[in-house]
Amino acid sequence: MRSGLFFILFLVISSNFFGQDLTGFVNPFIGTTNYGTTNPGAVLPNGMMSVAPFNVMGSDENKFDKDKQWWSTPYSYENKFFTGFSHVNLSGVGCPEAGSLLLMPTSGELNVNYEEYGSGYAGEQASPGYYTNRLTKYGILTEVSATTRTSIARFTFPKGQANILLNLGEGLTNESGAWMRRISDTEIEGMKVLGTFCYNPQAVFPIYFVMRVSKPPLTAGYWKKQREMTAEAAWDSTAGTRKIYTRYRRDIAGDDIGAYFSYDVKAGETIEVQIGVSFVSTANARENLEAEQNGFQFDKVRTAARESWEKELARVGIEGGTADQKVVFYTALYHALIHPNLFNDVNGQYPAMGSDKILTSGAGRYTVFSLWDTYRNVHQMLSLLYPEKQLDMVRSMVDMYKESGWLPKWELYGRETLTMEGDPAIPVIVDSWMKGLRDFDVETAYEAMYKSATTKGKDNLLRPDNDDYLRLGYVPLREKYDNSVSHALEYYIADNALSKFAAALGKKEDAVRFRAQSLNYSRYYSPEYGVFRPLLPDGTFLSPFNPKQGENFEDVPGFHEGSSWNYSFMVPHDVPGLIKLHGGNRKFTNKLQEVFDDEHYDPTNEPNIGYPYLFSYVKGEEWRTQQLTQELLTRYFKNSPNGLPGNDDTGTMSAWAVFSMMGFYPDNATEPFYTFTTPIFDRIMLRLNPDYYDNKVLEMEIVRPGKNARFIDKIVIDGKKFNGYRISHEQLSKAQKIVFYLKERNH
Amino acid sequence: MRSGLFFILFLVISSNFFGQDLTGFVNPFIGTTNYGTTNPGAVLPNGMMSVAPFNVMGSDENKFDKDKQWWSTPYSYENKFFTGFSHVNLSGVGCPEAGSLLLMPTSGELNVNYEEYGSGYAGEQASPGYYTNRLTKYGILTEVSATTRTSIARFTFPKGQANILLNLGEGLTNESGAWMRRISDTEIEGMKVLGTFCYNPQAVFPIYFVMRVSKPPLTAGYWKKQREMTAEAAWDSTAGTRKIYTRYRRDIAGDDIGAYFSYDVKAGETIEVQIGVSFVSTANARENLEAEQNGFQFDKVRTAARESWEKELARVGIEGGTADQKVVFYTALYHALIHPNLFNDVNGQYPAMGSDKILTSGAGRYTVFSLWDTYRNVHQMLSLLYPEKQLDMVRSMVDMYKESGWLPKWELYGRETLTMEGDPAIPVIVDSWMKGLRDFDVETAYEAMYKSATTKGKDNLLRPDNDDYLRLGYVPLREKYDNSVSHALEYYIADNALSKFAAALGKKEDAVRFRAQSLNYSRYYSPEYGVFRPLLPDGTFLSPFNPKQGENFEDVPGFHEGSSWNYSFMVPHDVPGLIKLHGGNRKFTNKLQEVFDDEHYDPTNEPNIGYPYLFSYVKGEEWRTQQLTQELLTRYFKNSPNGLPGNDDTGTMSAWAVFSMMGFYPDNATEPFYTFTTPIFDRIMLRLNPDYYDNKVLEMEIVRPGKNARFIDKIVIDGKKFNGYRISHEQLSKAQKIVFYLKERNH
Repeated sequence: MRSGLFFILFLVISSNFFGQDLTGFVNPFIGTTNYGTTNPGAVLPNGMMSVAPFNVMGSDENKFDKDKQWWSTPYSYENKFFTGFSHVNLSGVGCPEAGSLLLMPTSGELNVNYEEYGSGYAGEQASPGYYTNRLTKYGILTEVSATTRTSIARFTFPKGQANILLNLGEGLTNESGAWMRRISDTEIEGMKVLGTFCYNPQAVFPIYFVMRVSKPPLTAGYWKKQREMTAEAAWDSTAGTRKIYTRYRRDIAGDDIGAYFSYDVKAGETIEVQIGVSFVSTANARENLEAEQNGFQFDKVRTAARESWEKELARVGIEGGTADQKVVFYTALYHALIHPNLFNDVNGQYPAMGSDKILTSGAGRYTVFSLWDTYRNVHQMLSLLYPEKQLDMVRSMVDMYKESGWLPKWELYGRETLTMEGDPAIPVIVDSWMKGLRDFDVETAYEAMYKSATTKGKDNLLRPDNDDYLRLGYVPLREKYDNSVSHALEYYIADNALSKFAAALGKKEDAVRFRAQSLNYSRYYSPEYGVFRPLLPDGTFLSPFNPKQGENFEDVPGFHEGSSWNYSFMVPHDVPGLIKLHGGNRKFTNKLQEVFDDEHYDPTNEPNIGYPYLFSYVKGEEWRTQQLTQELLTRYFKNSPNGLPGNDDTGTMSAWAVFSMMGFYPDNATEPFYTFTTPIFDRIMLRLNPDYYDNKVLEMEIVRPGKNARFIDKIVIDGKKFNGYRISHEQLSKAQKIVFYLKERNH
Repeated sequence: MRSGLFFILFLVISSNFFGQDLTGFVNPFIGTTNYGTTNPGAVLPNGMMSVAPFNVMGSDENKFDKDKQWWSTPYSYENKFFTGFSHVNLSGVGCPEAGSLLLMPTSGELNVNYEEYGSGYAGEQASPGYYTNRLTKYGILTEVSATTRTSIARFTFPKGQANILLNLGEGLTNESGAWMRRISDTEIEGMKVLGTFCYNPQAVFPIYFVMRVSKPPLTAGYWKKQREMTAEAAWDSTAGTRKIYTRYRRDIAGDDIGAYFSYDVKAGETIEVQIGVSFVSTANARENLEAEQNGFQFDKVRTAARESWEKELARVGIEGGTADQKVVFYTALYHALIHPNLFNDVNGQYPAMGSDKILTSGAGRYTVFSLWDTYRNVHQMLSLLYPEKQLDMVRSMVDMYKESGWLPKWELYGRETLTMEGDPAIPVIVDSWMKGLRDFDVETAYEAMYKSATTKGKDNLLRPDNDDYLRLGYVPLREKYDNSVSHALEYYIADNALSKFAAALGKKEDAVRFRAQSLNYSRYYSPEYGVFRPLLPDGTFLSPFNPKQGENFEDVPGFHEGSSWNYSFMVPHDVPGLIKLHGGNRKFTNKLQEVFDDEHYDPTNEPNIGYPYLFSYVKGEEWRTQQLTQELLTRYFKNSPNGLPGNDDTGTMSAWAVFSMMGFYPDNATEPFYTFTTPIFDRIMLRLNPDYYDNKVLEMEIVRPGKNARFIDKIVIDGKKFNGYRISHEQLSKAQKIVFYLKERNH
């Protein structure tokens, strides 16, 4: 294996090939409204730290307040009231979590009530690794940047009293409680409890931090919200208020605490603030800070952050397309490179999955695995373009099994949140193995998969309804609004992946068994409706039945976050079988087309995002895929804050766009194939990691006779015409040059 | 100086002299109602740790609830609802503080709501270093004991599920907020914020703890009161409740948190729980625990605690008196030996006064100095009977000056609470010096006293009204209900002490100056009323004026917690001058007698507790002292829960009883003299510390011709008749034998 250094040098050199400033094509504001739940904060590729402007609490002037409805992002583009920078945030998720350690600069008299100290802002700008705004109430210029595990802020103050506040009482998370203590005039350390992601009350974890200010304050202290008192309020004037602790500087703890540092500054004076975090300890947070930053050097950190992104984005070079399309593309790539993110500290330590143990990893340990989303395309994108990350992620998942006894489903900072359903680590790991990323503990991985596939339901963390599933071949509806069909459909996909893995490992019986299980999806097919329909324990269909029920998140029997329409074609592992079930190509095509014609398609949720590619399984109907992906990209992916169709789902929507804009999509997780569609650009250069691929650069050229040439006429790979519209990973990754010849008409 | 070991041996031997089980004469329930604010918990002599049954919250069945009125004790005898054992408590104070780390055993299903898990109790018993009861709701036998810095509890459970709860959310203190974390299956460590004593919001300090259980639990975890949510309560069923964390065991923090350990036990199975505390760190709490206890040995700790008390109580042997009188006496001695208490850890470390520094002391560092109370008699009792403790306390006070710039006024765990008024460290230190306890930094002590006596008011922590005081010779009334007269009267006492110290140190000018200042009390004397009356800035008296105003804690101009009557004879340093002011012996005697005849005397508050002894300054009127002290002892000091007149004031009321029952009282702090009164007993043996006194045993014999012989006929010291009724400390402490000959008639 070649050295990492060689590869880095290669990237640095090759990123100059097109000579582009690729970070300039990233618009971090995309997805910051319309429930995209991304944020414009500073973050490094797959970095633990992120620094987001927090503007979702404290004022009625905000359109959205985190406490007034279901709310899952620290920032909303429409909002106006800024209450600080939140440190460590999730990008593109649908439940509130993290978004705490709120750092706020103010000027004038100290005020520790966020309802009052918040400010309007102007002059907002963001680029990868950098965010700035100007607080209109105070005349303070704020700037933030980040390293992998630490942040730096630079505040430029007007003359007079300047204050720096760290609020540990508020944040996006619904967990509460924090502790901190003074280390020196310029340093504090502490811990905040996070968790309850997606309202799982037991998914709880601590975040540790160290914060340093670049200048010793004139005065400093804490605040804490005091309890409401009854009779004794008569003597304690602080009852129910946020008391300021002017002299006490030892350990403080509580639900709503904060620290302040006050200064007398000259006009234009800057003060910098660093925060290092760790999920292990404050000592590790300090070690992270000292390893990743050398003193207070804001500009150096900012430059390094930009260069880090530049290097990652440069794995794809593009020519052609509009400026907006380039921005949509690179921003999607950027968004798909935020999660999963590094979890281990610079010394290698990380909290073991599901326990209190601290372990050490020599490689990258990753966290934030939203696998029900990302198994569909994010990991396929990583396997192709960032295989070194994907392999570490696979190793992380297998280690999670070793630590906790189960592969992850929706892992968050070492906790299984059990959000959504299925057994989605299986397709991720198998897909990686199929693509040649095999340097992990394969036997243990198989053991882990076999365990969840075969363990009785009551002992089965991942497949709690496994008894029904194994006995009946499907999951019957047992509660009015259970997600039984959604569960089973995911198990089928996982079992198919497991079957392939078994076959590859020479476990023939298992391969046959799990493949057979995976085909039971047909039980749900209702010939009457031509869609999947919930089954009862006695094998009969649920009645009455309305395949549209479940749109717009309304409650629906059998399906999770969608209607029957959104699930009825989610059989990527047996599309030919599904076609047969529908009565052949024409009937299948018509039914699938009905999804789009009658607007059953939900561009914001995962079960149906592969649908556009299914037309390409029917010879002669591939144009529908090509037409649809371009339409959907135009309609839902834009260079504007509402430029994502909905929750980015830790990059899944973005990865859909990345692939679709490049002209190929991995529509069947675990089958190492991609389906072609019409690329958006004129030339695409994929720079493959030579540690993993023999081919260094895959060039795709798009020959477009006119701007309305939207359909694929033919594809020529390394001089040879390619037959069909699905290409294996091996062939694609070994190709030097793929030329798409486009045409205007669909036939 | 002789070795400490010799002294200990001496005590062990001599405690057998009378062969009494002195701890058997201590009734820890005395003072547990009638606002005595003592508690029956386990504590060692001047120990940091105390373990009190906590029964003042959680039920309407309780007569007193800590949140329904001003409340300052963890236990009330009338109450019925027990919610755990509080660790580290104040004894005999008037403001809520400490009384936290609530340890509760329950049985059956886990319930973490104290409103529900509390229990009635029966079979309550207490003796020095031991308390037990039976929880009627659960059938659990509880027993607790203590070492100096640690506790041990033994819970005997019925068969089935047993739970041990540590509640860090509640307690007597009005501060809140705690943090803890799991160390192992059987150990947790943490910190709770305490403070706001007497509603001083800045008097805040942390207590650290380590808790160990003797048996690994089946299950364990935390709880935390969740915030009330608004919109999101729809999805989070734990909103507003105490959520149980069944799996999370790393750091937790919040306003209202706790830890639980659950077991499946056999009938009669015992589980022991240890708690070590420290005001420095959890590491020190652990070190204290490991140094003071060797594994779980409840009976050993209990025995050692009893022996420790036995040894201290044995410094006074008594014969005669009723059983109740013996109990009143030894319980008073016990109560006067609780505060001040040790503050440094076994490794010597303690938090510096008023700062965040950690310092190390080779000797005993003391805390909880309620000096406005204790300067009057507690420290005099210690100087005579426990000089080794008193000297360490003096050193502690001088060190506090070195650390913070000021001597203490009402010091609490390293914080100056500024409760009550005056400059009371001065008389304490000077009194000790006068009695030969001089092995401390005398020059620095003088510097400290001089500083508070001479510093301008705005910079003067202890005498904020020093400008007026120095300029006018008195403190004028400047606000309607200020305590101006009370302030000045205390400054006069302090200045007199300082004058004596100056004289002794050869600082003649200072001696003259401060003595002159101390005599300005006469300015307050109103010839019209014959009492002290507030003065206005222009030198005229406040009008209208009612000398009775201020009784029963009503607001009154010029006086703190009392009426003019309670203060008008508080001039211990110039009783002859006060007599002259009143117009001679007869007028003085009549006026003083009026205090008692008209019920102006308040047996519960310090300014007037020396009054009974002032009659003895007038020849021929000494019988009034003798009659009064016996009457007051009978009326207010009883062997029953209401056996203290009011707040014990960290032992001040008890020390009054100790001295008065022994027949002599130090009525003038800083003058090394005692005034005789009629002893209650027939024989009293004072065992003096030979490291400090040449005399090993002072025997007092009371020759009582009949049981109604209540007055002193004559006193014979070592065979020689003693003239007068006031004896110097030197003469008393050197006497081998003092014989009181009593008579029935007062003349």
